[in-house]
Amino acid sequence: MAKLVVLYKTPKDKAHFDAHYASTHIPLAKKIPGVRKYEVSTGSVASPAGDPGVHLVAMLTFDSAEAIAAGFGSPEGKAAAGDLANFASGGADLLMFETKEV
Amino acid sequence: MAKLVVLYKTPKDKAHFDAHYASTHIPLAKKIPGVRKYEVSTGSVASPAGDPGVHLVAMLTFDSAEAIAAGFGSPEGKAAAGDLANFASGGADLLMFETKEV
Repeated sequence: MAKLVVLYKTPKDKAHFDAHYASTHIPLAKKIPGVRKYEVSTGSVASPAGDPGVHLVAMLTFDSAEAIAAGFGSPEGKAAAGDLANFASGGADLLMFETKEV
Repeated sequence: MAKLVVLYKTPKDKAHFDAHYASTHIPLAKKIPGVRKYEVSTGSVASPAGDPGVHLVAMLTFDSAEAIAAGFGSPEGKAAAGDLANFASGGADLLMFETKEV
């Protein structure tokens, strides 16, 4: 399997972020071809070192790194990526990797 | 459910990190009470923005945020946390949050 992890930094307007993410971004991202599972953080993102400056974490599971690339190259992937500018005012770090269960 | 995500920054000695993580850290972390699933990245961690400076991502699933806290307060949790100094020479960011599937 492979994961796309999106770390959304604290946005300027948390209420707008939350409303847009739920109403618009989740439906767009769910349309990306190859998404097997889509998990998001609820409530605050904590760290033992103090506030990590991360507002929301999204974790999308695909079959492989190739499937992630194909998904994001699709029209649905481009629409989801293009939507980031509409709510992710704090920026976002995207991490992509293959995984194994240990 | 709840997740603990550990982002291990690029260590000074990748070969030592990889050997120690596989031989010692995984067995220690698997003993933490309450761990339901334990996934790690394999191969490189990529980002559309270029090298994210992350060598390995670990994702541990627990039943709840309370279960994460209890796990890390246990002797096994303290042993796993104490082991970080033995291999994570680039540092590590820990993120903890409750999750839902969407």
